[in-house]
Amino acid sequence: MGPLELIALPGLPELHRSDDLASLIAEAAARARLTIADGDVLAVAHKAVSKVEGRVRSLADVVPGPRARELAAGHGKDPRAVQAVLDETAQLLRAERGVLICVTHHGFVCANAGVDASNAGVEDAVVLLPEDPDASARRLRAQLSQRLGARPAVVVTDSFGRAWRHGQADVAIGCAGLAALEDWRGHRDADGRELQATWIAVADEAAGAADLARGKDSREPIVLVRGLERHVTPDDGPGAASLRRPVEEDMFR
Amino acid sequence: MGPLELIALPGLPELHRSDDLASLIAEAAARARLTIADGDVLAVAHKAVSKVEGRVRSLADVVPGPRARELAAGHGKDPRAVQAVLDETAQLLRAERGVLICVTHHGFVCANAGVDASNAGVEDAVVLLPEDPDASARRLRAQLSQRLGARPAVVVTDSFGRAWRHGQADVAIGCAGLAALEDWRGHRDADGRELQATWIAVADEAAGAADLARGKDSREPIVLVRGLERHVTPDDGPGAASLRRPVEEDMFR
Repeated sequence: MGPLELIALPGLPELHRSDDLASLIAEAAARARLTIADGDVLAVAHKAVSKVEGRVRSLADVVPGPRARELAAGHGKDPRAVQAVLDETAQLLRAERGVLICVTHHGFVCANAGVDASNAGVEDAVVLLPEDPDASARRLRAQLSQRLGARPAVVVTDSFGRAWRHGQADVAIGCAGLAALEDWRGHRDADGRELQATWIAVADEAAGAADLARGKDSREPIVLVRGLERHVTPDDGPGAASLRRPVEEDMFR
Repeated sequence: MGPLELIALPGLPELHRSDDLASLIAEAAARARLTIADGDVLAVAHKAVSKVEGRVRSLADVVPGPRARELAAGHGKDPRAVQAVLDETAQLLRAERGVLICVTHHGFVCANAGVDASNAGVEDAVVLLPEDPDASARRLRAQLSQRLGARPAVVVTDSFGRAWRHGQADVAIGCAGLAALEDWRGHRDADGRELQATWIAVADEAAGAADLARGKDSREPIVLVRGLERHVTPDDGPGAASLRRPVEEDMFR
């Protein structure tokens, strides 16, 4: 195994709807004298994608319904922000101590359906998850290949809490060209014994690793990950959708 | 932010009870011409720690009780292996489709209470989690500082499944000298707006990143992580215990 290297791209501007994210990434890489190659992975914080896709919602335009008003009153929240969460929610799993744990329309289980007010770039606005983060990753990969003359894989990331652990870790919500899971089940260990349940969430570990390479208070949504060539594929693959555990296998819903 | 670099240490031998893990790590680093410095982090797969601590159990010595025999029959498992799991379990949360989701005596929620038959190094034996992984990390850090003349942080890792996502990601079960959580709650974003719920599980992200740098079929339990200096502390700190969500805050038990 070669070493793994992660470098945050400095100097991306505040992003707006219809900005050409691929060109901005290519320019930032060039300014930092970083060459991006075919086997590289670009981890992209979803807010960068959401903003250029216009997935920012002004709370002034949100009219809270009765359920949102009720939840907001019970949990000390802005009813418009709660309505924005409910609009992204397929199923509300838990509402406790000010936390709403939601299944999003995509099928991700996370707090507030991924709706977030920080780093929105606009007053009184919230950033939503991309409508189809795998499609976003595929689109960005295609555009990057035009701008860069190389075709890195793309992982779109978000910070998710965990059921039984404090804090959040970044995971992959969209993915193109990176095999999200590496399946060693049925393979054998160094002693020739069958490996049990070794099914590695490569894209999630890459997302978490990338998060360590950036500062939360700086504008560094893009992290270049080198050394994952063996997981990078020419085709875009099934994406982060393959990481979602289907309802019928869920023991904790 | 500087770049992050992760390098697996090659060439560790099969480990046995009472082996001097710190010396073996120092020798492997020297052979690979890697200098380990104060601000570095060593991610150590828990099996390396468990083996030198003698936390390997021969199934020939395990007498399954009635509950283990019942669960084994219902889930197609070896009743002795199930008993070994139950012995490490404070609470069995779920037993479904051959998977036992347990709360360990430490308070970790994971499959099979972390008991694993692969890479045990011995026939018909299972590897248990260390009895006190934070203490293991502190001990190893102290020994490493004697062998290396530097005092890297130590993270003891294991692969945990996740409630709503496929695959496993490595997390920190023990930790010394690395601040396991970075708390940005109450801080402000690039626009001066308060960051919401930004509480980063640094030690878990580091554990997952390290997993990407090693091959599952090779003997590479140790990964050197460079670039996390800002999270490395002179004191050992509260360890990975701080990552465990207490029962009273658990919405999914």
